[in-house]
Amino acid sequence: MRDLTEENVTEAVLEKFASTPDPRLQAVMASFIKHLHGFIRDVEPTEEEWFQGITFLTELGQMCDDVRQENILWSDTLGVSILVDSINHRRPEGASQSTVLGPFYREGAPDFENCGDIGANTEGHSTRIRGRILDFEGNPVANACLDVWQTAPNGLYEVQDPEQPEYNLRGKFYSDDNGYYELLTVAPVSYSIPTDGPVGKMLNATGVHPLRPAHVHFIVTAEGYEPVVTQLFTEGDEYLDSDAVFGVKNSLVVEYQSSSDDEEFLVNYDFVLVRSAHRQ
Amino acid sequence: MRDLTEENVTEAVLEKFASTPDPRLQAVMASFIKHLHGFIRDVEPTEEEWFQGITFLTELGQMCDDVRQENILWSDTLGVSILVDSINHRRPEGASQSTVLGPFYREGAPDFENCGDIGANTEGHSTRIRGRILDFEGNPVANACLDVWQTAPNGLYEVQDPEQPEYNLRGKFYSDDNGYYELLTVAPVSYSIPTDGPVGKMLNATGVHPLRPAHVHFIVTAEGYEPVVTQLFTEGDEYLDSDAVFGVKNSLVVEYQSSSDDEEFLVNYDFVLVRSAHRQ
Repeated sequence: MRDLTEENVTEAVLEKFASTPDPRLQAVMASFIKHLHGFIRDVEPTEEEWFQGITFLTELGQMCDDVRQENILWSDTLGVSILVDSINHRRPEGASQSTVLGPFYREGAPDFENCGDIGANTEGHSTRIRGRILDFEGNPVANACLDVWQTAPNGLYEVQDPEQPEYNLRGKFYSDDNGYYELLTVAPVSYSIPTDGPVGKMLNATGVHPLRPAHVHFIVTAEGYEPVVTQLFTEGDEYLDSDAVFGVKNSLVVEYQSSSDDEEFLVNYDFVLVRSAHRQ
Repeated sequence: MRDLTEENVTEAVLEKFASTPDPRLQAVMASFIKHLHGFIRDVEPTEEEWFQGITFLTELGQMCDDVRQENILWSDTLGVSILVDSINHRRPEGASQSTVLGPFYREGAPDFENCGDIGANTEGHSTRIRGRILDFEGNPVANACLDVWQTAPNGLYEVQDPEQPEYNLRGKFYSDDNGYYELLTVAPVSYSIPTDGPVGKMLNATGVHPLRPAHVHFIVTAEGYEPVVTQLFTEGDEYLDSDAVFGVKNSLVVEYQSSSDDEEFLVNYDFVLVRSAHRQ
């Protein structure tokens, strides 16, 4: 393993990592090395470009803290997150579709009763989202948990915004015996993903806008069913066709209907779960 | 751009970045997206594995500071640095070969006269490295600068070791009118690259050792010639064939001959430079 050249270096690197004890890690390393070297051979970076890449990778990590995950944002904006999501959730048509988790999920949101209001501390257009949790055969799923989060009308999640109370616009709801859930919030808005880090620089340099259509995030879990990580998007939003993170699916676009007294929006959506592949 | 699936997401991402104004960046992004998505399709990571990858990337950046560059170390250990080096320095046979820069170069090393000793503050086997700087036709190159650095016999560069003085075992030497240079130092040792970060974890998990054969680093520059970033390796070192960063070339392996009085090692090496492609 001396005198490595453009011609033989990739084989030498593969050979060195070929003795990785764990076969899964061995396969991942081999594929990663092949594609990484393939990329380098394709673009033939100058040493200055290589160092720009090193600097970009470094900035990605250094932008991260307890509430900011720039590497997830990078994965999201390059379509990797939605690709991983698609690979892991090959669901039958009719089941609720999943989409990207995004970097702003936070565990430990407070429990609410049905009809509880996660937007009680937030000015905005009052919105009632309701429906049922159903299995694939149309039967109600009781006691399913809906872990919900969204931005305030200023486009910021509470972790990004010192003005919002802890866990503002986050909450867990539970379906009743007939599978019904119902929650109150404020209407979500379209917003920009954070652009003050390296991902923002990348989007700026490539002329890609950083905006996402308005949406509410959900993780729906119920014993015996596959969890669904998803979002409900607002019909009519101008960014539905150019979501910065490639997350929009037509089955997840919902109408915000005005109530008869114009006091609130009404959204109806039934979540359809599929049974876990490996139930106990 | 809705309802993206495994089948169409890569095309959609490529299309979004296709309007990158700078054509070079456009080409780099397109290749990167293709290879990155290709890797994901090959290995089909679980969501947990994807998150392990996100965490690893984050740790790479967070390990970096003024004197530690974990992303360069990662590039080195995956053979990317030597591949980039090979692509950028397609030199004719007979010219001094280049190899990886490594993450421990530091600008601003002090100037020395010929025969100056960069190891004056370091216990070790005294070593004299000397030779000439020549052009490709064998003519001497005067006033070439040799920027030299190496570890102490404890295997640490001064930036890694609070016990060593600033710029210990670093210095700049200049060839005389006949192209001669001569420097004193201590014999370098084989050593481990830093293993207390994510790269160390990767090597440990893959069963790849982190050791490098003993070497002295050089950057040789002279007006009108291509700079040479290289290393001289110690003949007989047990890691010459398994260098953790794939840097060893036979033409850069040198003998450490004992002087007649056994007081010091002698190393002879002539650097052969090629003229810059784009001289003024």
